[in-house]
Amino acid sequence: MTYSETIEVKIKSQDFHDITGEVENIIRKSEIDDGICNIFAIGATGAIVVNENEPMLLEDFRRTLEKISSSKKLYQHIENAHSHIRSMLIGNSQSIPVKEGRLMLGTWQNIMVINFDTRNREREVLVTVVGD
Amino acid sequence: MTYSETIEVKIKSQDFHDITGEVENIIRKSEIDDGICNIFAIGATGAIVVNENEPMLLEDFRRTLEKISSSKKLYQHIENAHSHIRSMLIGNSQSIPVKEGRLMLGTWQNIMVINFDTRNREREVLVTVVGD
Amino acid sequence: MTYSETIEVKIKSQDFHDITGEVENIIRKSEIDDGICNIFAIGATGAIVVNENEPMLLEDFRRTLEKISSSKKLYQHIENAHSHIRSMLIGNSQSIPVKEGRLMLGTWQNIMVINFDTRNREREVLVTVVGD
Repeated sequence: MTYSETIEVKIKSQDFHDITGEVENIIRKSEIDDGICNIFAIGATGAIVVNENEPMLLEDFRRTLEKISSSKKLYQHIENAHSHIRSMLIGNSQSIPVKEGRLMLGTWQNIMVINFDTRNREREVLVTVVGD
Repeated sequence: MTYSETIEVKIKSQDFHDITGEVENIIRKSEIDDGICNIFAIGATGAIVVNENEPMLLEDFRRTLEKISSSKKLYQHIENAHSHIRSMLIGNSQSIPVKEGRLMLGTWQNIMVINFDTRNREREVLVTVVGD
Repeated sequence: MTYSETIEVKIKSQDFHDITGEVENIIRKSEIDDGICNIFAIGATGAIVVNENEPMLLEDFRRTLEKISSSKKLYQHIENAHSHIRSMLIGNSQSIPVKEGRLMLGTWQNIMVINFDTRNREREVLVTVVGD
């Protein structure tokens, strides 16, 4: 059995948006008890992480990425090379197990979409559940 | 068809634990011949990698991560920001194809759980197989 | 339902190879309309990314990885530690949703295999589709 739904989120540049509640709703509507849930950010400057939604941690993460791939550096690809590079480093999708109708996240694991682009973006995130 | 099982592993801080054999056993018990196997570390300071289990390589990897996200640096998030950051960079799950009842790993690909936390931890890893 | 096929690609050291068209063909042949497609690079020095296939961006990405994990540095693991480290940072597989028989990639999202090894390699990439 497969069920999918698209979430649309407005996210500022370099910001995080928590979609845990929305993904949990989609799992309920899917009526799939056991399987795998894939969360996929459409677009080459987005990313998905599963971690703690704590503002100071997210700021630490942002600064680490700025050190790895600075937004001030000159790149060959025009305008937003660092946005693409961060997206490739983090990855634009995550897969999470579903058991007895529940997403199997730990206490400090939230699903967050990141917009690494240089401007605010409306992002489409496709949630797909496969199982039975 | 879906089958899942939880593996519990005790891992020291910054250490790796090889679970390839245990995942192969779960595949056998699942009786799923063809599909996808998701390996998911529960907790926001863990990670899963699929690579060579060679102690000197793992030490090189540890040092590279220490350079990217130092454990000695001051962060805004208290205590273990670098543990979370490493977990987000590496990712807390991996998906591996299953074909004719076998995990399709290359010769030097082992499945390892990493504990990036600042203290020793007991980690739960959920293995989910979807297929037929 | 599960369908899988192996793609073989020759890739130079540190180079990228676009397999989007081949994966789309496999989706068509699978006759799976809705599900998840896993793309898995066999071998511990390969990786899969889903991003823009633009030569200058790929060169920027290569330079960022060279900064993170230099190929000139001395490591404990002989010969190609940086190849393994880059593979673990980026990840050797990606999962992409399939909807109404189509891979749900954004406009600038291409599927590329990377060979991080120090020599040219023939790489096996396993494409597995699960769904219905």
